[in-house]
Amino acid sequence: MKNIDFYKSVRSRTEALIAPLEIEDFIPQPVVFGSPPKWHIAHTTWFFEDMILKNHYPGYKEFDARFSFLFNSYYNNIGDRTDRAERGDITRPGVEKVLEYRTYIDQHMLALMEMDSSVELNDLIVLGLNHEQQHQELLITDLKYTFSLNPFFPVYSEDFNLLAEKNAGSGWVELEEGVRTIGFAGNGFCYDNELSQHKVYIPKVQIAKTLVTNGAYMDFIESGGYEKFDLWLDEGWSWVVANQQKAPMYWHKIEGQWYQYTLAGLVLVDREAILCHVNFYEAAAFANWKGMRLPTEFEWEIASDHFEWGQRWEWTNSAYLPYPGFKIADGAVGEYNGKFMINQMVLRGGSVATAKGHSRKTYRNFFHPHYQWQFSGIRLAK
Amino acid sequence: MKNIDFYKSVRSRTEALIAPLEIEDFIPQPVVFGSPPKWHIAHTTWFFEDMILKNHYPGYKEFDARFSFLFNSYYNNIGDRTDRAERGDITRPGVEKVLEYRTYIDQHMLALMEMDSSVELNDLIVLGLNHEQQHQELLITDLKYTFSLNPFFPVYSEDFNLLAEKNAGSGWVELEEGVRTIGFAGNGFCYDNELSQHKVYIPKVQIAKTLVTNGAYMDFIESGGYEKFDLWLDEGWSWVVANQQKAPMYWHKIEGQWYQYTLAGLVLVDREAILCHVNFYEAAAFANWKGMRLPTEFEWEIASDHFEWGQRWEWTNSAYLPYPGFKIADGAVGEYNGKFMINQMVLRGGSVATAKGHSRKTYRNFFHPHYQWQFSGIRLAK
Amino acid sequence: MKNIDFYKSVRSRTEALIAPLEIEDFIPQPVVFGSPPKWHIAHTTWFFEDMILKNHYPGYKEFDARFSFLFNSYYNNIGDRTDRAERGDITRPGVEKVLEYRTYIDQHMLALMEMDSSVELNDLIVLGLNHEQQHQELLITDLKYTFSLNPFFPVYSEDFNLLAEKNAGSGWVELEEGVRTIGFAGNGFCYDNELSQHKVYIPKVQIAKTLVTNGAYMDFIESGGYEKFDLWLDEGWSWVVANQQKAPMYWHKIEGQWYQYTLAGLVLVDREAILCHVNFYEAAAFANWKGMRLPTEFEWEIASDHFEWGQRWEWTNSAYLPYPGFKIADGAVGEYNGKFMINQMVLRGGSVATAKGHSRKTYRNFFHPHYQWQFSGIRLAK
Amino acid sequence: MKNIDFYKSVRSRTEALIAPLEIEDFIPQPVVFGSPPKWHIAHTTWFFEDMILKNHYPGYKEFDARFSFLFNSYYNNIGDRTDRAERGDITRPGVEKVLEYRTYIDQHMLALMEMDSSVELNDLIVLGLNHEQQHQELLITDLKYTFSLNPFFPVYSEDFNLLAEKNAGSGWVELEEGVRTIGFAGNGFCYDNELSQHKVYIPKVQIAKTLVTNGAYMDFIESGGYEKFDLWLDEGWSWVVANQQKAPMYWHKIEGQWYQYTLAGLVLVDREAILCHVNFYEAAAFANWKGMRLPTEFEWEIASDHFEWGQRWEWTNSAYLPYPGFKIADGAVGEYNGKFMINQMVLRGGSVATAKGHSRKTYRNFFHPHYQWQFSGIRLAK
Repeated sequence: MKNIDFYKSVRSRTEALIAPLEIEDFIPQPVVFGSPPKWHIAHTTWFFEDMILKNHYPGYKEFDARFSFLFNSYYNNIGDRTDRAERGDITRPGVEKVLEYRTYIDQHMLALMEMDSSVELNDLIVLGLNHEQQHQELLITDLKYTFSLNPFFPVYSEDFNLLAEKNAGSGWVELEEGVRTIGFAGNGFCYDNELSQHKVYIPKVQIAKTLVTNGAYMDFIESGGYEKFDLWLDEGWSWVVANQQKAPMYWHKIEGQWYQYTLAGLVLVDREAILCHVNFYEAAAFANWKGMRLPTEFEWEIASDHFEWGQRWEWTNSAYLPYPGFKIADGAVGEYNGKFMINQMVLRGGSVATAKGHSRKTYRNFFHPHYQWQFSGIRLAK
Repeated sequence: MKNIDFYKSVRSRTEALIAPLEIEDFIPQPVVFGSPPKWHIAHTTWFFEDMILKNHYPGYKEFDARFSFLFNSYYNNIGDRTDRAERGDITRPGVEKVLEYRTYIDQHMLALMEMDSSVELNDLIVLGLNHEQQHQELLITDLKYTFSLNPFFPVYSEDFNLLAEKNAGSGWVELEEGVRTIGFAGNGFCYDNELSQHKVYIPKVQIAKTLVTNGAYMDFIESGGYEKFDLWLDEGWSWVVANQQKAPMYWHKIEGQWYQYTLAGLVLVDREAILCHVNFYEAAAFANWKGMRLPTEFEWEIASDHFEWGQRWEWTNSAYLPYPGFKIADGAVGEYNGKFMINQMVLRGGSVATAKGHSRKTYRNFFHPHYQWQFSGIRLAK
Repeated sequence: MKNIDFYKSVRSRTEALIAPLEIEDFIPQPVVFGSPPKWHIAHTTWFFEDMILKNHYPGYKEFDARFSFLFNSYYNNIGDRTDRAERGDITRPGVEKVLEYRTYIDQHMLALMEMDSSVELNDLIVLGLNHEQQHQELLITDLKYTFSLNPFFPVYSEDFNLLAEKNAGSGWVELEEGVRTIGFAGNGFCYDNELSQHKVYIPKVQIAKTLVTNGAYMDFIESGGYEKFDLWLDEGWSWVVANQQKAPMYWHKIEGQWYQYTLAGLVLVDREAILCHVNFYEAAAFANWKGMRLPTEFEWEIASDHFEWGQRWEWTNSAYLPYPGFKIADGAVGEYNGKFMINQMVLRGGSVATAKGHSRKTYRNFFHPHYQWQFSGIRLAK
Repeated sequence: MKNIDFYKSVRSRTEALIAPLEIEDFIPQPVVFGSPPKWHIAHTTWFFEDMILKNHYPGYKEFDARFSFLFNSYYNNIGDRTDRAERGDITRPGVEKVLEYRTYIDQHMLALMEMDSSVELNDLIVLGLNHEQQHQELLITDLKYTFSLNPFFPVYSEDFNLLAEKNAGSGWVELEEGVRTIGFAGNGFCYDNELSQHKVYIPKVQIAKTLVTNGAYMDFIESGGYEKFDLWLDEGWSWVVANQQKAPMYWHKIEGQWYQYTLAGLVLVDREAILCHVNFYEAAAFANWKGMRLPTEFEWEIASDHFEWGQRWEWTNSAYLPYPGFKIADGAVGEYNGKFMINQMVLRGGSVATAKGHSRKTYRNFFHPHYQWQFSGIRLAK
C-alpha cells in the first residue's frame, strides 16, 4: 500500500471507531493507565504535527500552540506536559475543535506527501501511522474500561462484542532444542524493540496450537484456583487477596451464572470461546495448575508459524528487555520503547482489537503483570 | 413569592448557569468533594421526582428507573447508589437526556402544584428549591475547580469574575456581654440545623464591619506568614508543609506579581478587593498574626445586622454541632444536615455565588477546615 | 503537698509503671498517634531539663546535647526534632542511658528546689509534673495498644486489668435552664485551656449518673448497631465500613463469647462492668440508638458534682475550642494546648489510667473522634 | 567441611554478628522489606525446628508452640503467621528467650547429626545453613537501614565499615559470540533457581574487570545525572522525581563534601572505593550515561572467571525468571525461590556482607529494581 493510501486508511479507521460515541464519552479518564478518547484522537494527530509537519512542511503554521502542551504523552523531550492523571479533567479544547485539528493536519499531511517522498519522511509517516494504530486499540480498550464502570453497561456497538472468538485447530507444536534466529529483518516497518536480529538457544518444548477457553478457566475457578496460594506467584497472591479477586476482569456472577461485559453489552460467558482479560498473574497461576508453563517470547516466535494467532494478546514468560545491540534513537522518537524495559512482561500475537496488518510475529507488546484490561489470553507450553 | 413562581425562578436560574458550558464541561469530577455539572443538574431534579412526585403525583410514571440509582447523593435510605468518587466516569445518560429529564419533571411539578396546595407539599417543594440553590452554588464552585486544572485557564463567562467585590463601610461593631437569642424563628423556610431558637451567653466582643482584603493578606504572606509555624494550628501547619502551600487557592505568582484564576479568566489580584478561597487554617493563622481571632457563629449572628455580608462565606471559630433540642427528621429528608455534625467548621453569611435570597442571618453553612475551594473569606473579631 | 514531695511522688510513679517492662517493650511505636515507653520516660525528663534547668539552674551542664533533639515532641520552638513517626526506630541511646538521664535530672531538680522557691519556678515545676502525669497515662495506653498486636496477648501485670470498674449509684441529674459559670478559678494548678472562667447558657437537661455498661453496649451490637447507617454520623459510618468495625477496640469474639484484651491479659467481657475503648462515633451512634444524646462539656461540668466520675474519659458533644479570652502563652510552653483546637472532641472526667489527683471537674481532655485506644466511655443525656 | 562443623561455624557467626548489639537494637522494623534482628535470629532457628527436628528427631518436644506462628516468614504452607509489617511490634518473647531457643535447637540438632547421617537430612541441614547465611547478610543490611534513621549515626563496629573496598585489576574481559553452558552442576549445594544446567547463546561483548567507583559516580552526579530524564528508565525517573533523589542511599552532602553512613559511622566518601547502595534504576542510568549497558546474568556468569567479584552484589540486565526445566519442590521448601520470579532483577556475585563461601558464580540473587539498601554496585558491559 502506498503511504498516502495507508495514511487515509488508518486515519479514517480512527474516525470510524469514534463514530458510535457521544460527546460525553470522549472525556473520562477513570484510571491513570488509561486515556480519554479525546486525548487519543488529539495525541495521534499531534504526533504528525510535532514530529513531521513542524520540521518538514515549508512554512508550516501551527494549528494551536496549546495543543503541543496538552496532547503529547510521555515525550519528555518536547516541553512540559499536563499531568498524565489529569487528562480527563481538561474539557477545553472540546471534541469539535480536536476534530478540526485532525482535518487541518490531514490536509497538510496529504499535501506534504504529494510534495516530498523522501525515505526519511516516509519512515516517519509509517511510524506515525503505526503509532495511531496502537492508539486505536488503546482507545477501544480504555473505553471498555470506562463503560464498565457504568452500572447499566452501555453498548458501544451491537456488532463489537470482541469476546466471541473460538479456537481453530488443536494439538501441539513441538520445537527441537537448538539455536534459532529471533527478531525482525526485511524492508518493512518494525519497532526498534524488534531489532536487531540475533540468535537464541531454545530448549525442547511443546506449545499449544490453541488458546485457553473460558470453559477451561471456569474449571480452574471451580477447583478453587483463586483460593490456593501455592498456585500463584507471591505478588500475584497479594494481588488476589488485596482485590478479593475471583475471576477475570469484566466477569460478573449473576444468579449462579457467569456473565461478562463486552462492548456489545453484558452477555453470558461462552465456555467454548477464548478466554480474555486475564493478567500475567492469572496466566501463570492457570499454567501452574495445569502442570505446564507459559512459553517464552522466543519459543512463541519460532512456533507461531504453526498456529493461528491474533485474537488475544498472549502473555509470555519473558520480561520486556532489550535485544543484544538494541539502540535508542536520539530525540523524542527515541523515547518510544526503550525506557519501558523494566517490570513489564512481553505479550505476543495481537488481538481482535488490533488494527488489521498492524502486528507480525516479531512484534513485542508489553504490559505490567497486574493489568487485566487488555484483550489478553493464555497459550500453554510444556 | 408564590411557590410556582419560586419554582420557575430557581429552575430557570440553573439553566442560565449552565448556558455557557460545552457538553464536555458537564463530565469531569477531578476530586471526590466536587461533582460534575451533569450530576448537579440531574440530582436536583431527582430530588423532586423521588421525594415529591413518586409520593404525591397520582399515577406518576417514573422517567427512567436508572436515574434514581445514578443521581441520588448521600441518601442511604434510598437504595444503593454509585460510588461518589465515580460520578465523573458515568457518561450515559448524556446531557441531552438529563435535560429531557428536567423538562419532564418540570411539567409534572407544575401540574402537581396546580392540583395540590397542601402545606406538606409546599414545604417539600420549598426544601427542594433551597436544595437546588445550594447545588447551583456548588456547581459554580466545583466547575471553577475543574477549569483551574486546565493550564490555559478557560473563561466561563467574562461577566462572572466573582472576586472583584470590595468592602463598604469600616470600623467595628461592639457587642455587650450577655444572654442573646440565637436560631431561626418565624414562618419562612429554614433548615433543620437552624432550629430551635435558644439562648446563648455572649462575651464582650468587637467584630469588624469589613472583610479582610487581598492587600492585607499579601502583607501576611510577605511577612512570612506561611513560614512561621507558631501562627498556625498544628493541623494547619501540617497542611502547609505537606502541600508546600504559599498562598490562597487559585493564586499564581508570575514574574513577581500575584494573579488569581477567576471564572472570567486569569486576572491580577486587586489589593482592595475582598480576599477569597482561604481555608479555616489560613483564616485562623491570619487572625493570629493580627493578634485577633475569628468570631463565633453566635457573635456573628448577633452582630450581622450592623455590617454588610454576602460576598464571602465567613469562617467562624464555631464547630458545626447541633443546637439544643435539634431533632433529625425521619427518613431520607432527615439525612440532610445532622449526620455531618463532626469535624466541620461553621461559615456564616453567603457568597457572590449564592443564589439571591437563599441565605439569611441564621443560616449555617459548614465545611472541613482544609477546604479552600469555597468562596470563603475572613472577618476578624477582638 | 509541697512541690518537692509532689516531684518525688510523680517521678517515682513513672518508675513504678515501667517496672513490669522488659527492655524490648520500651521500643516499638506501631502507630503515629502513640509513642514508645522509652520516649515517654525521656520526654518527660527532657521537659525539666529544657524548660527549667537550662534557664534556672546556675551553671547547669546539659546531660547530653543530642537528647534535646531526640526527645522533644511537638515543641516546634525548640530546634528541629525527629519525625514523630520514627520514634520507634531510634534504639540509641538505650533504656539504661535514659534512666541515667532521669537520675541526673532528678538530682539537679531536687537541688534546684532546695535553692529556689520562686513562684515562677514553682509554677513551671507543677506544669512539668502535670505533663508527666499525662504521659504516664499515655504510656499505659500506648503500651496496651502495642501489646494488643501480639497474638499471644502479653500480661503487663495481673493486677492491672483496668476494665473491671462498675457503676455506683443510679438515676439522673436534672439541670435547670439558665446562665452558669464554667472554667477554672482558684489558686491551684490548671491548664491554659480551662481559662478563663466565663458564663454559658445551659438548656434544661437530664444527665445520667451512671456510665454505659458492656451489657448495654452488647445489646446495641446485637440489635445490629454496626449495620444501621442511620444511627451513625456520616464520617462514623465511613469508619465502620472502611474498618469493617463490629465492636469496641480490643474486643474479640471467640466461640460465640465476647472477650477483651486487658493489661492483665484476655478476659471475658463482664456485662456489668463499664464500657471502655469506644470512639466518639460509637458513643454518638449508641446515644442515637437510645434516643438520647451526649452531654456538652458545659452540662457535664455543672452536673459533675452529682455523680461519680474518673473511671472512664467521657466523650462530650463539644468540640475542643478556646474559651472566651483564651490566650496562648509566648514560647514553647505556649504550644501546649491552643494549637490542637481543631477537629477534636472534648472528653471530661478521667480514667482508671489517670494519675490520682491529676484531673478535676474543669479539666478538658481532647481526642480525634476516631480514636478508640483511650480508656473512654459513654455517659448519656436527654 | 563436615556438616557438623559447617553447622557450628554458621551458627556461631550469627552470634558474632549480634554481639555488638544492645537489646533495644533487636526490635525495630522501620520498613516492610526489612526485618528486626530478633526476627532474623529466631526465624533461622525456627527453620531447623520446623523443617528438620519436628520430622526427623525421634520424640522431639517443641520448644514453644507460639514460635512456629511468630517466626516463619513467607511459608504459607505452614499455618497462619503474623503480618510481615508488624514484626517490629512483637516484643515478647524477648531476646533472651530467643537465645534460649537457639541453644535448645542447637543441642537437638547436634544430637540429631550424631544419630542420623542420611542424605535427605544432610541436604536439609545444608539448605538450613545456607538459609541462615542469607539472613546473616539481611540482618546486617536491615540493621544498617535502621541505624541510618538515627540522626546521630550509631556505630555498629569500628571494624565494620564495609564500604572501603577498592578494585584490583583493570581492563575488560572479551567474550566471543556463541553457545555457552549456564547453571549449576556438580555435587555441592545450590539453590533450585540455579538449575538445571542449560545452553544459552551469548553475543560478542566486553565486560569490565572492575566495578564502578565512587569517583566515577560523583562525576555522573556532577554532570547532572539526576536531572536528565533521558538517561533514566521511565520508572526510574518517576522514582527520582517522587523521592527527590540526588545520590546513592546513605550519602549526605555536608558543607560541600559527600559523606556516607557506614556501620562504622559517618565517613567521607572515598573516590577510589567501589560504589555501593545504588538501585537498578541508578545502575541503568549510569551505564546509559557512559554509553554502555549492564551485562546480562549469562554474560556475567561466563566472564566471571576473569575478574574479582564478591565486594558488591552486581545488578545485571536480566529479569529474575526460571531456567528451562525449573521445577518447584513440593511443600514449604518449594516456596523458596520460584514464587518470586516476577518484577525483580538478578544480581550476581556477592558482597562484603555475604558469608564467606556462601556464593558462587552460578548464584542468582534478586531484588526489586528500586531497592538501594543492599550492598549493590555496578559493573559495565559494552
